[in-house]
Amino acid sequence: MAGFQPIKSVEDSVIKPQNGQMHILNPHIATMEEDVLYHIALGNKSHDLKEMFKDVKFVCFGGSPSRMKKFAEFMVEELNYKLPAGQTLCNIAHGSDRYVLYKVGPVISVSHGMGMPSLSIIFHEIMKLLHHAGSSDVTFFRIGTSGGLGVEPGSVVITDEAVDGILRPYMEVATLGMMLQYPASSDKTVSHDLLNMSKDNDHFKTLLGKTMCTQDFYEGQARLDGAFCDYSKDDKMSFLKRVYERGVRNIEMESLCFSAYCHRAGIKSAVICVTLLDRLHGDQISTPHDVMEEWQNRPQIIVSRYIKQKLSIS
Amino acid sequence: MAGFQPIKSVEDSVIKPQNGQMHILNPHIATMEEDVLYHIALGNKSHDLKEMFKDVKFVCFGGSPSRMKKFAEFMVEELNYKLPAGQTLCNIAHGSDRYVLYKVGPVISVSHGMGMPSLSIIFHEIMKLLHHAGSSDVTFFRIGTSGGLGVEPGSVVITDEAVDGILRPYMEVATLGMMLQYPASSDKTVSHDLLNMSKDNDHFKTLLGKTMCTQDFYEGQARLDGAFCDYSKDDKMSFLKRVYERGVRNIEMESLCFSAYCHRAGIKSAVICVTLLDRLHGDQISTPHDVMEEWQNRPQIIVSRYIKQKLSIS
Repeated sequence: MAGFQPIKSVEDSVIKPQNGQMHILNPHIATMEEDVLYHIALGNKSHDLKEMFKDVKFVCFGGSPSRMKKFAEFMVEELNYKLPAGQTLCNIAHGSDRYVLYKVGPVISVSHGMGMPSLSIIFHEIMKLLHHAGSSDVTFFRIGTSGGLGVEPGSVVITDEAVDGILRPYMEVATLGMMLQYPASSDKTVSHDLLNMSKDNDHFKTLLGKTMCTQDFYEGQARLDGAFCDYSKDDKMSFLKRVYERGVRNIEMESLCFSAYCHRAGIKSAVICVTLLDRLHGDQISTPHDVMEEWQNRPQIIVSRYIKQKLSIS
Repeated sequence: MAGFQPIKSVEDSVIKPQNGQMHILNPHIATMEEDVLYHIALGNKSHDLKEMFKDVKFVCFGGSPSRMKKFAEFMVEELNYKLPAGQTLCNIAHGSDRYVLYKVGPVISVSHGMGMPSLSIIFHEIMKLLHHAGSSDVTFFRIGTSGGLGVEPGSVVITDEAVDGILRPYMEVATLGMMLQYPASSDKTVSHDLLNMSKDNDHFKTLLGKTMCTQDFYEGQARLDGAFCDYSKDDKMSFLKRVYERGVRNIEMESLCFSAYCHRAGIKSAVICVTLLDRLHGDQISTPHDVMEEWQNRPQIIVSRYIKQKLSIS
């Protein structure tokens, strides 16, 4: 039936997790003479990817280039990673201005821009990078910002299930004339382990919830403050409340693709985002810059605890 | 009929072009006390947007921040724009690291990142910016890079019609639980005027063609070199040839949203992209960096001629 492939059943869609070396689901790569990772200006002929990346165990994706730089600097501290005198972190992807890519020991910190297409490109290239490097047992995180729904601004939401703008739990990818659907099942183990990293005396709340992933920040998220808007405040509130009742606790723009790709590749993963406002009370972000900066650190703190535990660093 | 709104007929979808002052299709904006353009770190209370942007007549969008900086510098030369001693261009959106925004007299040069969601955000905010500024008679361009189809690499394709990854000429936006469809009709006048800006002695070819706009650079564009690929080279070639036969001459990731939004807002516009390779002959870009830099200037040259003609600058 051209143009449509029904979503697989939950049983069908279980993919064996990659516990050993990172392999990719593309037989053509093995036959290529050179693989240029165009959007991060790296390649398996121009660079010794094994030497550079074989030890990677954690990849942390986030939207903003400057936030992912800060996360790398934060990991230097957290991992007690000693930079020799005269050395500093550098953006490994500096040959392109599409993404930034930092590495701190076994941790990669990489930006993904905004929206699923932008995430999609860097996801493909990071997967290939780790495959060429021969990395193994890698866990992926998306550390982001989001709009909250019925939760206090500054809360951290770990995605229990990602759904699209009309609450479908899969991502569509138009491929060779067919609109294929990939289930965005999330990795419950990593999500629950992350939740357990929150502490009673944390000055912020961490919770599990559904995440609605949209293609647009304005109409897609039922905002009243875009350049286009043909619905009323009542329409908006009624929609957001219905979405809340179905378990959605935050709204962002990448979790669906991230979860679907990780599931498809069998990669252990989690999406963890701070909420910058409560959309039930408004659309525009008016929180002071320094407060927001502190909030943006919160998912990083939780992920850092997880990484340190896995690496037995106290 | 919840969840679906049929595409309007061509007659229904004709929107009167904005010849006068830029207005936006959202009645709520007028009632807002402040409008923070979050992703470019500007606002109508924190900045005097009239003073800053009222004279804008052309907005040039492009994916890469560094390319859009270069375009701004190119326009300084082309428009004989005199910067006083001790002054240089600066990124007006420097308070955010999401996009870059430059201004050279009546020309804005702004990055949009990769993919329709990323373009969507900056489009909303630029529309609101120009509305608050009271700008009038503005023309929008997307100046980009793309994969070519059956055309010599380095050719410039002006989009005749934008279609999605399964050749539908509209963009879908999930809005308040409904999947709405917006026709991506392009502005034939500006496209043909741009085509007429090409010269017989140009060292590159400029042509009109359909543009396929995808959600992904790899599978969405039938590449064999992504992290995922479950089709053969024959499948790929058969798809690309069928797409070519239906008039597609290049493939990129933003034209559909750009055309649909411009059409919806009644803004004069065109999409003009250089082709970095011929996808009928390969997937990976292996052209030397300096050659590619020169190619990326080509759409800029055509657009600059158009702007100069409109401004009566010789």
